[in-house]
Amino acid sequence: MEQTAMPTPPRARRRGRSQMTRSAEPGQNLHLRVPYITRGVPTYDLLNEEALIRIEATADRILAEIGIEVREDPEAVRLYREAGATVTENATDRWTLKFEPGMLREILKTAPSRFTQHARNPANTVEIGGDATVFAPSYGSPFVMDLDSGRRYGTIADFENLVKLAQSSPWLHHSGGTICEPTDVPVNKRHLDMVYAHMRYSDRAFLGSITAPERAEDSIEMCRILFGSGFVDEHCVIMGNFNTTSPLVLDGVTTAGIRAYAAAGQGSIHLPFLLGGAVSPLTMAGSVAQCLAESMASCALTQLVRPGAPAIFAGFLSSMSLRSGSPTFGTPEPALGSLVMGQLARRLNIPLRCAGNFSTSKLPDGQAMQQSMMSMMSAIQGGANYILHSAGFLDGLLSMSYEKFVMDCDMAGALHSYLKGIEVNYDTLGFEALAQNGPGEHLFGTDHTLRHYQTAYWDSALNDDQPFETWSEQGEIDSAQRANQRWKNILNNYEAPALDPGIDEALRDFIDRKKASMEDAWY
Amino acid sequence: MEQTAMPTPPRARRRGRSQMTRSAEPGQNLHLRVPYITRGVPTYDLLNEEALIRIEATADRILAEIGIEVREDPEAVRLYREAGATVTENATDRWTLKFEPGMLREILKTAPSRFTQHARNPANTVEIGGDATVFAPSYGSPFVMDLDSGRRYGTIADFENLVKLAQSSPWLHHSGGTICEPTDVPVNKRHLDMVYAHMRYSDRAFLGSITAPERAEDSIEMCRILFGSGFVDEHCVIMGNFNTTSPLVLDGVTTAGIRAYAAAGQGSIHLPFLLGGAVSPLTMAGSVAQCLAESMASCALTQLVRPGAPAIFAGFLSSMSLRSGSPTFGTPEPALGSLVMGQLARRLNIPLRCAGNFSTSKLPDGQAMQQSMMSMMSAIQGGANYILHSAGFLDGLLSMSYEKFVMDCDMAGALHSYLKGIEVNYDTLGFEALAQNGPGEHLFGTDHTLRHYQTAYWDSALNDDQPFETWSEQGEIDSAQRANQRWKNILNNYEAPALDPGIDEALRDFIDRKKASMEDAWY
Repeated sequence: MEQTAMPTPPRARRRGRSQMTRSAEPGQNLHLRVPYITRGVPTYDLLNEEALIRIEATADRILAEIGIEVREDPEAVRLYREAGATVTENATDRWTLKFEPGMLREILKTAPSRFTQHARNPANTVEIGGDATVFAPSYGSPFVMDLDSGRRYGTIADFENLVKLAQSSPWLHHSGGTICEPTDVPVNKRHLDMVYAHMRYSDRAFLGSITAPERAEDSIEMCRILFGSGFVDEHCVIMGNFNTTSPLVLDGVTTAGIRAYAAAGQGSIHLPFLLGGAVSPLTMAGSVAQCLAESMASCALTQLVRPGAPAIFAGFLSSMSLRSGSPTFGTPEPALGSLVMGQLARRLNIPLRCAGNFSTSKLPDGQAMQQSMMSMMSAIQGGANYILHSAGFLDGLLSMSYEKFVMDCDMAGALHSYLKGIEVNYDTLGFEALAQNGPGEHLFGTDHTLRHYQTAYWDSALNDDQPFETWSEQGEIDSAQRANQRWKNILNNYEAPALDPGIDEALRDFIDRKKASMEDAWY
Repeated sequence: MEQTAMPTPPRARRRGRSQMTRSAEPGQNLHLRVPYITRGVPTYDLLNEEALIRIEATADRILAEIGIEVREDPEAVRLYREAGATVTENATDRWTLKFEPGMLREILKTAPSRFTQHARNPANTVEIGGDATVFAPSYGSPFVMDLDSGRRYGTIADFENLVKLAQSSPWLHHSGGTICEPTDVPVNKRHLDMVYAHMRYSDRAFLGSITAPERAEDSIEMCRILFGSGFVDEHCVIMGNFNTTSPLVLDGVTTAGIRAYAAAGQGSIHLPFLLGGAVSPLTMAGSVAQCLAESMASCALTQLVRPGAPAIFAGFLSSMSLRSGSPTFGTPEPALGSLVMGQLARRLNIPLRCAGNFSTSKLPDGQAMQQSMMSMMSAIQGGANYILHSAGFLDGLLSMSYEKFVMDCDMAGALHSYLKGIEVNYDTLGFEALAQNGPGEHLFGTDHTLRHYQTAYWDSALNDDQPFETWSEQGEIDSAQRANQRWKNILNNYEAPALDPGIDEALRDFIDRKKASMEDAWY
């Protein structure tokens, strides 16, 4: 009767209540708050040297024998050719580029292994690379959902709400980018409102637009207003998240955007979005090899434009239902693949973006959180440095969920504790805690307990750990319902960080002028 | 717009439907079915050598300076004393035993690093230790719950249902023990009905009673009827799961039970149930050191009774809410502790039982599955060999949930895929898959895809990966509701494995005689 061996739940505070009162608000965990995480645990290295070399050799072979197709960007083709790529023109505006083994790795040697992205509040400036880990909200969903209203298209009001929710969580470090698509704003103007929302309602670092080169330029220009032109020229203050067009294509909008960010000395993420079986091999070793090939090719462009420009190696690995053809997320194979991506990134010596809180569930239920945890664990254990999709991901990325957002934030907090690791020293080994009262005696009142109770154990703001009876008296609500209450409370209590009124006015003025300069476009 | 880069969900079966039809029933994953898992991934080793040595030294110091209190079992005290322990009598029937550093490790050298537990169906015989991993259902809840009836005390009918659910899942390998307490059967007789249910409704290996030495003997005697006396004398066919009385106590019922199993050459698990802050230090390094000390002391008794008897080193690490004093499960610190337990077990060279699908949630909701996944990942990544609590755990182990049981089984299936790891060879590297059609072309019809679609990717029986619209048309049900339907379907379709009628009669006869020989006792 395993359970009966558990001591009757004691009340820690009965004994020495005055000393044993943890901070009043659940989930504070003040000792764990950091602008970004510095990992205290080793990475989980899945594959041995031989297997890694085979993957790298396959990536090299893909690049040398199949090549990467570049579309509609002769300037990018020129840069790659000058660096040594063999270029074949397939059609007007389509070129196949082949790279000798090792060539892209050589180019990537000028990329920083770690860099700083500045936030307008210096206390929120993040480090990306090495043993630093940064959590950012999910990115790119056309829909939003909550338990009250179900699923609907995202709006700029949703976008602002989600920026506020992110800013309010101590467990995210970065405001992300397209937290949801603000579909009520014209396609050619929404980047202005999105970047403004990040600047106005958050004081953390963020991502800019990548959907067109001029929108990338607008995003960077708005940073010049916020940070000052001189500062932007010399520091990374914004990044763009660029997808390859898998398999093995870089389209011209992407490469032009990458060139814009790199030319300005700003950061860029180089992401193959690999739906296994559809745009990459069904076998994970093959997906990872392709991911390495594509991301290296994309990253290298930054160094051809401006050596030293910050670039992030990336991979979004997913799987597929082989009965319906639907994409699946939060499954075991991509989790393993993400661990390998970590190993490959360290061998490249470039920061990594990988995985996140992935799920295909349509509700913030058991499936959602099980899949999320498996995926998120792979990101943090694999050593990912920038983890987009850390909060809100549901419905195979088609929907951003308000409830899941706060559930994921709470999980991200728990991961702060996990990544801190276990301290092993005279004090934490706690010999005296056992020696003080000896065998058979509880440890509630020991000096060791009194010294550690303020910082021991992650304190969730959302999980229910109460006795069944208490939970039942309180209405038997599940974690999704608690999350529903929580996001509303957070929005009710939200206060915008101060922003210099002159800068705010200049930003609004820039946006107004830009919007007035063009007709609305909805595609 | 990360999401828009995802290809329009294609239907794999449209192309070559005749070839591309995966096995009809979701969740089959025939290629992953095994009687136990042989891990294909490395363990996740959290601490370095120096930290591990410090933990071991602290365990040695606890054993040498504070000691272990043994209660009400002079025979156990005699065995420890003869092996070299220093014994001090504290009171009638209470002795403090102190062990010189290294003494218990020396005794444990005769314990097998890996052993076989036989099932009545030889195809289900399991290996415990080394790179083998065995999943068993949760153990010891007084309550059961399901979405229809809520929480109530467990009965023998529930117990039988849960044995049937376990037997029906290909992703558990072992029938476990007290899947729930059958509280409608007298305390002194319920072990007979529980052992019978495991023998009758499952053909897998199982655990016997440990609540009194005579019940341990009954459990073993029933195995002699099932397997034959000669077989039982020479093979492990049953195990007992023994808790230390933390901190640092071994009570006489426990030690007498351990002696009974060991004397019969049967297996035993030696589990400190450490609620941090209550019965172990609040700091995880200290809890792990104590766990090592207690489990070594308990394990060693088996070798003093019968050198070579199978013994399992174990740890149940938990945390505490420092605002309410309630136990918390599925939290980050114990997950890290479990990884360290794996390292310590390998240094001891004894199989490990650790962690499981822990949660404090009162429903099979997001909290439940998030906590479960974090805890379960630590078990499998840490290299635990026997993972009790792999299915059904809710409510801080007070309740066994029918829905969570099947949700956890599905997760256990996904972990079969995870533990298989990534194969890296010419075929899985998939160069030809990309080369066949080249850049920009989908891979659905490639030879590589056709060769792998039957075994690629874990296929969940429970998760919903369908498009939102399909899910919506089907009633928008969440994973807990799907699980509710699923466990009912499984029970409806359950067929008991064949059992020799003569053996069945002999078992029933033994039980009838035993029950008739004593009055009912309810404590």
